[in-house]
Amino acid sequence: MHPGHDPTHAHGLHWKPRNPEYAARVRASFAAQGAMRTIRAELVGVAPGYCAIALKPHAAVSQQHGYVHGGIVSAIVDSAGGYAAFTLFPREASVLTVEFKLNLIAPADGDRILAEGFVVKPGRTLAVTRGEVHAERGDHRVLVAVMQQTLMVMHGKPDAPDAD
Amino acid sequence: MHPGHDPTHAHGLHWKPRNPEYAARVRASFAAQGAMRTIRAELVGVAPGYCAIALKPHAAVSQQHGYVHGGIVSAIVDSAGGYAAFTLFPREASVLTVEFKLNLIAPADGDRILAEGFVVKPGRTLAVTRGEVHAERGDHRVLVAVMQQTLMVMHGKPDAPDAD
Amino acid sequence: MHPGHDPTHAHGLHWKPRNPEYAARVRASFAAQGAMRTIRAELVGVAPGYCAIALKPHAAVSQQHGYVHGGIVSAIVDSAGGYAAFTLFPREASVLTVEFKLNLIAPADGDRILAEGFVVKPGRTLAVTRGEVHAERGDHRVLVAVMQQTLMVMHGKPDAPDAD
Amino acid sequence: MHPGHDPTHAHGLHWKPRNPEYAARVRASFAAQGAMRTIRAELVGVAPGYCAIALKPHAAVSQQHGYVHGGIVSAIVDSAGGYAAFTLFPREASVLTVEFKLNLIAPADGDRILAEGFVVKPGRTLAVTRGEVHAERGDHRVLVAVMQQTLMVMHGKPDAPDAD
Repeated sequence: MHPGHDPTHAHGLHWKPRNPEYAARVRASFAAQGAMRTIRAELVGVAPGYCAIALKPHAAVSQQHGYVHGGIVSAIVDSAGGYAAFTLFPREASVLTVEFKLNLIAPADGDRILAEGFVVKPGRTLAVTRGEVHAERGDHRVLVAVMQQTLMVMHGKPDAPDAD
Repeated sequence: MHPGHDPTHAHGLHWKPRNPEYAARVRASFAAQGAMRTIRAELVGVAPGYCAIALKPHAAVSQQHGYVHGGIVSAIVDSAGGYAAFTLFPREASVLTVEFKLNLIAPADGDRILAEGFVVKPGRTLAVTRGEVHAERGDHRVLVAVMQQTLMVMHGKPDAPDAD
Repeated sequence: MHPGHDPTHAHGLHWKPRNPEYAARVRASFAAQGAMRTIRAELVGVAPGYCAIALKPHAAVSQQHGYVHGGIVSAIVDSAGGYAAFTLFPREASVLTVEFKLNLIAPADGDRILAEGFVVKPGRTLAVTRGEVHAERGDHRVLVAVMQQTLMVMHGKPDAPDAD
Repeated sequence: MHPGHDPTHAHGLHWKPRNPEYAARVRASFAAQGAMRTIRAELVGVAPGYCAIALKPHAAVSQQHGYVHGGIVSAIVDSAGGYAAFTLFPREASVLTVEFKLNLIAPADGDRILAEGFVVKPGRTLAVTRGEVHAERGDHRVLVAVMQQTLMVMHGKPDAPDAD
């Protein structure tokens, strides 16, 4: 297992959401993202301070060597980190990515690419998350990318109209 | 104009390519990226140490508020930076993104989103680029994102089979 | 000259400060930083949206090969970027580094190390800057590092007590 | 405890060093860094894929509000990450920071600032680490900063002359 991976945290035992509807709100917001549909990304896990998004590699998301494009990897892990933070936001707030930094470590290839976002520090105005992307093939799991991200809490701006 | 934007550099007067076929190689590699086709990105400029990729906003690349998804912005500017570096590589080398960091500054919206990559430092093993993304509407141009990126020169590994 | 370097901008013709005392405030804040004194950094330039900090290499700031330590390079360019942003802040606000990303490109060695911060995007809550560090030897100038940074405007919190 | 902190990993059970002298080499290299002596940083832990550096806050490393300067925090966590990677390098190689990204999360204040570096991915040419900085006061521990870093393995270049 990847050092620093903490399955306890991954299952959301650490953080307390301020909005009991947090999972429904993440699902509604994700469903409103045309980009996620276009690349065929799926929301596969939501817990307080955690979000997981998966993608099955296919030609329409490839780079020139046939692997999943680094930009597509960044799109799903950026979203996973953003929604991980969003699970801890108050009801009347939306989320904005301020910035992120991504290291691409191994080719994104296999049966499934799984991007996970973990809250490192929730905050009143800013939140910090980290992300991991693994390529899964059968029982095997390879670390493909790691991310560190800053999000902004947009108070008084509910998310997409259909998010509530 | 954005501070730090240097149109002289943008037109490629600073750097000397080591491969006279640099532009054809970038075009071939770009054409081999399924992901760029899927999101309808177009290669609109190649010069030594420079690459520009454009995208017309459409619903299939949107996030929940209707703007172009930050992950899609990152995909085009990551590619623009990578190909900017690639223009200066020797013939028998391909390019790999080691990492990048992206600040999202304003909503990506308008007639056209233009991502430009500029080489900051070419190198034997590693190259550093910076990127800018602007949203254009009529004559108006807004800075949407800035990137700083590290690339690796993969010596002895030509790019996609169709790249030469 | 480094691509992207814009001497017009460096001399502060682009940005309008909201506080006419901006330069005095930067000087007072810099003088209150024990760390800058300890490493013998000097504030050598302040203009709207711009700040320059210099350091003469000496053994007390070296790493194991005798060059200036990357962490010391990061300390001066982090400060240069932070004060570049601070020049554009309103009177009753202080500055906080949210995060920065630094690429170390060449050994920091020579007669003088010059770190410059440039505002890319001022903002009501967040500001984005980029930084460049050059090593100077006689007339020669080598790009040593590039930075991209996010700052926070701390409204209602004046800087150090002695800053006004 | 901080999510993602993995004390098992911190004690070095995951990674196998290729050089049995790894700890002595880290100590010798650290001792050769004038900058670490100047800021009074101490090497307090070395294990395969792990390094810890501590600092007692004092006026000579402060910023304008009296906390430890963010640049000093970056200097110790950059070193901790670099030495974490270095523990896994072969004998005839030295380490170079390619780049790092640091989020500053809380003021660095207390009895002791502890910076820890953890290897995420060792590699033949590049290594990736992450870093955490905590401020300790009595039994209390606050997360002050998180880092993500890329290092280069400089094959055939032993570290400082006194490192072996």
